[in-house]
Amino acid sequence: MASKTQSRRDDLRTKLIELGEAEIIEHGLPALKARDLAAKAGCSVGAIYNAFPDLHHLALAINGRTFRRLGAQVAGAVEPLAEAPACERLVAMGLAYLDFASQNTAAWRALFEIDMAVGEDIPGWYMVALEALFDHIRRPVAELRPDLCAEDVEFLVRGLFSSIHGIVWLGLQKRISAVPRPELSRMITLILSEIGQ
Amino acid sequence: MASKTQSRRDDLRTKLIELGEAEIIEHGLPALKARDLAAKAGCSVGAIYNAFPDLHHLALAINGRTFRRLGAQVAGAVEPLAEAPACERLVAMGLAYLDFASQNTAAWRALFEIDMAVGEDIPGWYMVALEALFDHIRRPVAELRPDLCAEDVEFLVRGLFSSIHGIVWLGLQKRISAVPRPELSRMITLILSEIGQ
Repeated sequence: MASKTQSRRDDLRTKLIELGEAEIIEHGLPALKARDLAAKAGCSVGAIYNAFPDLHHLALAINGRTFRRLGAQVAGAVEPLAEAPACERLVAMGLAYLDFASQNTAAWRALFEIDMAVGEDIPGWYMVALEALFDHIRRPVAELRPDLCAEDVEFLVRGLFSSIHGIVWLGLQKRISAVPRPELSRMITLILSEIGQ
Repeated sequence: MASKTQSRRDDLRTKLIELGEAEIIEHGLPALKARDLAAKAGCSVGAIYNAFPDLHHLALAINGRTFRRLGAQVAGAVEPLAEAPACERLVAMGLAYLDFASQNTAAWRALFEIDMAVGEDIPGWYMVALEALFDHIRRPVAELRPDLCAEDVEFLVRGLFSSIHGIVWLGLQKRISAVPRPELSRMITLILSEIGQ
């Protein structure tokens, strides 16, 4: 019996993640409401809080899926380039990040809009996914800057992630700072081509 | 008489900019409300709309002041370094940006939270302030990369601004991506030191 209950709960979790993701894509993260989700999932509000401790954890689970899709897209862009120069691999990853953000803008924005303070209970799988993403960047950076100590390689890796994120974030906003896609690609290529030259 | 009315309106504008800025600093951009401002300024709601066409224009005026203060701080950091290598000047500007954002976080965030779509009526003075900021970055970049065509220099300038912005934005958030100040400085220094090396 316990395993049947468990399996029913797992099904509901999956359903809620899918419905919640659709909601985020259509209306953004603040639109995630237990009552609406319950109506769409055909369950009680109580059942939602049986599947997840709170909506924050549902949002984390949705972001987790987005994060893994992002990681797979970045990895997929760099894998065929195993023999290519490190600089080319970095550029391919930067452009894959731009592609993912352009194609999944709402879900990608939600990754950064969720309140996720240091020290709060961040799921272990989240940290693993984050580390895997940084790992892809770390390899070419370490190759390009063998003169840097491990600590500075780490700063450069995280700094480069934030840099490309900043270019994509400002570039995709409908603002005066917004720039057309080909120009964003060129910016990313120029910045990443500076590393270790 | 007309000039007296004008001068009274100018005084109210200045007062509203100061009160609005305090409101943004304390509660963020969405907290800007005509009724509250009128109560604090001791004027009618109608008087606010006599001083500014709408709250959006008041927010623009507040951001304009922040933007000019930011520009002055960046310019002030680079002016004593007129004879220094271009790379050193770039780093000084990046660190001045980090300082400004750390010391004026709420007002600085409001610069990027305001809805300012391309094609809407962006005041001329705003574009002038933006251009002045980019101009400071353009000079050392052009020196460091004399091989680049003017268009690519422009992409690199805007890309570098977005990069440093991305590092500061993610770094100052209370998130797992947040990093201590000295580490942020090091990241900015490392990224900017790559240019033209």
